[in-house]
Amino acid sequence: MRKKQLAILGSTGSIGTQTLEVVKSNPDHFEIYALTANNNSDLLIEQARTFLPEVVVIANEMKYPEVKEALEDLPIKVWAGSEAIVQVVQLPDVDMVVTAMVGYSGLKPTIAAIKAGKAIALANKETLVVAGELITRLAIENKVAVLPVDSEHSAIFQCIVGESAESVEKLILTASGGPFRTFTPEQLKSVTSRQALCHPNWKMGAKVTIDSASLMNKGFEMIEAKWLFDMAPEKIEVVVHPQSVIHSMVQFRDGSVKAQLGLPDMKLPIQYALAFPERLKTVSPRLDFRICNQLTFEEPDKDRFPNLALAYESIYRGGNMPCILNAANEVVVAAFLRDKISFLDMSKVIEATLPRISFIHQPTYDDYVATDVEARNVALSFI
Amino acid sequence: MRKKQLAILGSTGSIGTQTLEVVKSNPDHFEIYALTANNNSDLLIEQARTFLPEVVVIANEMKYPEVKEALEDLPIKVWAGSEAIVQVVQLPDVDMVVTAMVGYSGLKPTIAAIKAGKAIALANKETLVVAGELITRLAIENKVAVLPVDSEHSAIFQCIVGESAESVEKLILTASGGPFRTFTPEQLKSVTSRQALCHPNWKMGAKVTIDSASLMNKGFEMIEAKWLFDMAPEKIEVVVHPQSVIHSMVQFRDGSVKAQLGLPDMKLPIQYALAFPERLKTVSPRLDFRICNQLTFEEPDKDRFPNLALAYESIYRGGNMPCILNAANEVVVAAFLRDKISFLDMSKVIEATLPRISFIHQPTYDDYVATDVEARNVALSFI
Repeated sequence: MRKKQLAILGSTGSIGTQTLEVVKSNPDHFEIYALTANNNSDLLIEQARTFLPEVVVIANEMKYPEVKEALEDLPIKVWAGSEAIVQVVQLPDVDMVVTAMVGYSGLKPTIAAIKAGKAIALANKETLVVAGELITRLAIENKVAVLPVDSEHSAIFQCIVGESAESVEKLILTASGGPFRTFTPEQLKSVTSRQALCHPNWKMGAKVTIDSASLMNKGFEMIEAKWLFDMAPEKIEVVVHPQSVIHSMVQFRDGSVKAQLGLPDMKLPIQYALAFPERLKTVSPRLDFRICNQLTFEEPDKDRFPNLALAYESIYRGGNMPCILNAANEVVVAAFLRDKISFLDMSKVIEATLPRISFIHQPTYDDYVATDVEARNVALSFI
Repeated sequence: MRKKQLAILGSTGSIGTQTLEVVKSNPDHFEIYALTANNNSDLLIEQARTFLPEVVVIANEMKYPEVKEALEDLPIKVWAGSEAIVQVVQLPDVDMVVTAMVGYSGLKPTIAAIKAGKAIALANKETLVVAGELITRLAIENKVAVLPVDSEHSAIFQCIVGESAESVEKLILTASGGPFRTFTPEQLKSVTSRQALCHPNWKMGAKVTIDSASLMNKGFEMIEAKWLFDMAPEKIEVVVHPQSVIHSMVQFRDGSVKAQLGLPDMKLPIQYALAFPERLKTVSPRLDFRICNQLTFEEPDKDRFPNLALAYESIYRGGNMPCILNAANEVVVAAFLRDKISFLDMSKVIEATLPRISFIHQPTYDDYVATDVEARNVALSFI
């Protein structure tokens, strides 16, 4: 059996490193063809020496000499710059591209990979949030599978395997509720980025952890689900489930509900996307209902966490609105992480930014780029 | 589209009447070809006048004149006796046989239906408990689909749709725990059949309700699951889940778990079996996680409820042991319902009966019949 050749974009991040663990556990199934990183040259070099890819790309060109030199004794091509990432995904031998970079930067290489006919393991949710219409259209045109890596979307994907699309009535996205689930509005006023970075169940990168605390992550996932599963937003419900054991659910037209459950381990959805339609054996710990003996559910509070409402509003309007939402959010999260604005200010800046950008009903790729720049500037002006 | 022609065995019982409700709700998909009942002639007559089947069978021959006369104005054939049930399932126009009769009596007509190549919607779990090896072998030989109607097995069946057989690692059967889940051994001594008939979540027939209270029902379901899904008993786990919202689960070899959830409404699994692989739309109430906001799990207590251990023991030994288990159980449940023995005596009589019958490793149909008679006599001798 030919091993699946993978290009991992963002290999030094949380999803990237876990993807490499999955590859390491399944040497008969996967091989690393390319690794790309933004800044973390040390880890990229270490990964390259372990997995011996054909190519590595360091996006930050300042770090090119360092990476080049460190790998000189090995037959590994070293490229630099964001344009090189767009090139690497199109290489003929690449079978699947794992899009594990953070934020909006995932959009361009994802589009290039789809146009080159590569299967996508999508871990960069911003790609679908910003340009879901474009991405899904391109995927259909190029007959490319877009396989979700997010645990929620992987759960939904697993629940609809073998089911007909028309039998799906509703998607139920579960949300942990984040570290501030039980906080009063008064308490929320003074929470710090340090508190927000302590997610109760999942260990993730900084950006997505803040997005989880503000529920923007769930808003993005709702938008992502709309595009991945072709569901109207009103048929996507968010339910707070603090234990994060049920990763999401699907309700069918006969009233039956299917759920996917597991321990909070991203390696499971990563492996599922990489190996689909196969399920590869793992020896990781199993869910134990003597320990996970209570699962609870609550409605999300859209008053305390307005980001969820903003996300629904954006996707209902469609066009470039989710792109504005994402750009403004990237700006406010960065500002919050540097303690420039408060937790509650984040939603306020986003809400103020949304109406300030010209609405474009059917944006082109260039419209998305322009919207992104404009929205960042407007959001920054509020900080 | 040709409507699926159904023969419903046991149409006046709990599953039978609910099957007719499903048929009534889906007149474009299903038609009643035959109805059979044991004793309840009044309801059988009423059902016949509503659904206008080709044939009705009343098993109790004493009631034949009454049924015959009541349907004289209609072009409905009226047959009588248990042999007529075996005939009716083989009629050429029958597409699917719903085996909804109670207990061991379902075995013979189920075998006849499978040999005649009819799809089986299996609601009579005793058939698989008694003769699972025979039934599954016949089903494979005759290329017949055996579709589970029990909510637990329907849940498992729904969870494995689209999954490969070799990826299944474990089945997790959920059990409500019955009305005596929290009773002390002391309290269990004096519980009455009236108390046992009050199931916390499901409205069912008397036999299966008592079996639920004693956990024999779950033991039977474990045996049934072994045969339906070709799983070793040690890979079938029982978890007590008092809310009965999760109807059962499947664990896969990558550690992922899928669950099927729903309100406790047997019409859902009945309809799923009837319409498989389609899911027909219903307007029944949906699961609401604002109401079902807490799901809990416990280990079953095999000390207070020894029937579960007896069932595992029987299926591990195999052969005619589960047949002995079932026969003894039918006797003790009948005795308990008539207040002849106590709740705790039921397990004791079954346990005493098991070693008293000659073990047959690979029983024929005639061996099952002989074992059944013998085991009933032995069990009766203890009462």
